[in-house]
Amino acid sequence: MLMNGLHIVAELCDCHCPPSLLRRADVLCGLCRTVCSVPGLTPLGELFHQFTAPDGKNAGATGAVILAESHLAVHTWPEINAVTVDLYVCNFTQDNRAIACSVYDRIAAAFAPRRVRRREIGRELPFAPEPSSGTSG
Amino acid sequence: MLMNGLHIVAELCDCHCPPSLLRRADVLCGLCRTVCSVPGLTPLGELFHQFTAPDGKNAGATGAVILAESHLAVHTWPEINAVTVDLYVCNFTQDNRAIACSVYDRIAAAFAPRRVRRREIGRELPFAPEPSSGTSG
Repeated sequence: MLMNGLHIVAELCDCHCPPSLLRRADVLCGLCRTVCSVPGLTPLGELFHQFTAPDGKNAGATGAVILAESHLAVHTWPEINAVTVDLYVCNFTQDNRAIACSVYDRIAAAFAPRRVRRREIGRELPFAPEPSSGTSG
Repeated sequence: MLMNGLHIVAELCDCHCPPSLLRRADVLCGLCRTVCSVPGLTPLGELFHQFTAPDGKNAGATGAVILAESHLAVHTWPEINAVTVDLYVCNFTQDNRAIACSVYDRIAAAFAPRRVRRREIGRELPFAPEPSSGTSG
């Protein structure tokens, strides 16, 4: 196996953070930029979008930080105080589990959710043959 | 449940596509832009990065298309002819399973992989309480 990766997939519900973190793309982007500015991650760029309600108010945000080690993507739903987080960190030969968990914990804490569903997905390349593997192409 | 989402997580190995699709960010971006330009998806922006080898040659690419319905993220490893794909499509009330599967199939076919590991992750919000759900905050 040449490349190992850990992808943390999370849904955060009943978030009690300041509303601006759910509603404003610039505030969300600031959080994502901050948590990705740590040794072991290499941010290459970021792209965030502001959703606007019919009355002109900020209505949620979505975006991603592209990393040399893959990406962080966050989508907010202020209507239901919910957020989804994807943090996918990989590298040749290096085990990034500790850094992925640490960065995810910082993001999740910022949203102050009362309920969290957090799943971990291993993303090895090449992956080991297994009975459930499909073929294509 | 107010929001349902389907996230397709895939690793593609032994890709036999034209090398430019693995090596050049502009070519990869073109593919991603094309597959996301379908009814049911709303691209909001895209960000791709070109990796360069010490000899100046294109050495792989990474990037994402931000969608109103969440995101598409693709990372290539031309050294091992491998790619990872994330396609996460969600919406209030609407079932996006068919469109997610269709768009994923087009991306995967373009890389012509000989081996594929493809997983589907349901991302409902608010999620149903379950024994394995954690709490935080």
